Amino acid sequence: MTATILDGNEAARSLRAEVETRAGAFEARYGRAPAVSAVRVGDDPGAAYYERSLARSFGRIGMGFRPHTLPLHIAEAELVAQVEHLSVDPEVDGIILLEPLPPHIDRTNLKRALSPGKDVDGIHPLNIGRLAQAAPVGRPQGVDPCLVPATPAGGMAILRYYDVPIAGRHAVVVGRSNIVGKPLALLLLRANATVTVCHSRTRDLATICRTGDILCGAVGSARLIKGDWIKPGAVVLDFGVNFVEGEMVGDVAFQEATEVAGMITPVPGGTGPVTNVMLMWNVVRAAERQAQVI
Amino acid sequence: MTATILDGNEAARSLRAEVETRAGAFEARYGRAPAVSAVRVGDDPGAAYYERSLARSFGRIGMGFRPHTLPLHIAEAELVAQVEHLSVDPEVDGIILLEPLPPHIDRTNLKRALSPGKDVDGIHPLNIGRLAQAAPVGRPQGVDPCLVPATPAGGMAILRYYDVPIAGRHAVVVGRSNIVGKPLALLLLRANATVTVCHSRTRDLATICRTGDILCGAVGSARLIKGDWIKPGAVVLDFGVNFVEGEMVGDVAFQEATEVAGMITPVPGGTGPVTNVMLMWNVVRAAERQAQVI
Repeated sequence: MTATILDGNEAARSLRAEVETRAGAFEARYGRAPAVSAVRVGDDPGAAYYERSLARSFGRIGMGFRPHTLPLHIAEAELVAQVEHLSVDPEVDGIILLEPLPPHIDRTNLKRALSPGKDVDGIHPLNIGRLAQAAPVGRPQGVDPCLVPATPAGGMAILRYYDVPIAGRHAVVVGRSNIVGKPLALLLLRANATVTVCHSRTRDLATICRTGDILCGAVGSARLIKGDWIKPGAVVLDFGVNFVEGEMVGDVAFQEATEVAGMITPVPGGTGPVTNVMLMWNVVRAAERQAQVI
Repeated sequence: MTATILDGNEAARSLRAEVETRAGAFEARYGRAPAVSAVRVGDDPGAAYYERSLARSFGRIGMGFRPHTLPLHIAEAELVAQVEHLSVDPEVDGIILLEPLPPHIDRTNLKRALSPGKDVDGIHPLNIGRLAQAAPVGRPQGVDPCLVPATPAGGMAILRYYDVPIAGRHAVVVGRSNIVGKPLALLLLRANATVTVCHSRTRDLATICRTGDILCGAVGSARLIKGDWIKPGAVVLDFGVNFVEGEMVGDVAFQEATEVAGMITPVPGGTGPVTNVMLMWNVVRAAERQAQVI
């Protein structure tokens, strides 16, 4: 079998057009485009690179992007005060805290300062709590709306775009981070998959992976998941961003995997481009919800 | 094989002694016993029965229990105001909202009024969110402390009491409710189990159950889980409370299961008695944390 490649760029283009339409409708109604503030502490080159790439993405569809660069040695209290200030600024719809943050900053304190309604990266515990408590799709949610981290939301968007059925299928998620593995597991559960979460302490990982109708690599380990770990015909989502000898590779051994899987996202060009669009979606949603409240 | 019976009453006695000690220490330090307020709306006989049983349990170890009975047709705004009032009352350490609540009450609004620090039933999304984000046991948690629903917390307490190893083992949770299945899955994951969550949409449930080293019935379906669904030697936790011809039975076909499982909780006398003690634990913890803040 040769797997169908799930083209993330194609899905992203389609989704971006929707985001652009909604952002335009917001601007027409409220007289300004939805806007996000990105807080960066210090001069980390990776953070600066990501900031520029976000500025381009948001700018391209006419959304606002406001960088806030703060000194590396900023006092925690001052950083918290800045985030609190952005949290109440009615012109700021979303807030992104760019990683890495310096080690003297306690993230728990910082998250407390972040308005859950502006938490477009879905890092506030209230957002993951609402996701955890939300009823399965198709039923009344029973909770306030939440913002979901863009990477797992992007994975779900790819499944939707390519009409991959989820309900009743066994999804295996390898990785349990707070920004990918755990929210992804909750999203798949909400979509009525049977969900297994694996991690560094999992025994016989290969056998468990082979039970997955939908297999998700979200562990950050280059080519960990081999071809013979995949159930023939399974749908494979690869969230890994690893660099091997300068080459960007996923958590799945892609070449082997294409011989076994039914569908697979490549790295690059799979989940990545959709992640970027889902972040913009979150900003539009945050803007709409907060505008309704005001 | 004949399974070892995990005696919940024995575990509960041991835990109750610890709770009593901590509650006594709180009283010695702050001049009053930790106290919980239970809000009941209307005259549902089940709720009234549960309220009396809680009053006895709390009274027996010298903790405070304050019932608040409100009329069935109370306006939602008034009920919310009552919960807000209890949430700021410094003499109230924990708040229990007794089920059932009448259908005209929106639970989302009610939960919003509940102080997360007093949410001893663990129903506020901030509490399940913190549980979801907490790092695996043994590492710095990285989140504010949370209150976990008493039933799944009780299941974990039984595993601890009987020295059942969890890390690296495959736990299968049948059921995904917000008060048992989902928080239990998150607790097992935090304890480094590989975790699978099954539910009404799961295909081939028997086969998946048979992969569990730890199998948890949390679905509320009398004797759903048969003996031949159990991996030989597995540890079986039964959270089911079902009534068949006046007899209280669990989610597991107990007699068959004892021939296959290595260890099993009976119903009654298994997870139930420990649940009751874990609720008192939550009230003591809530009291301690809030006293430190004040």
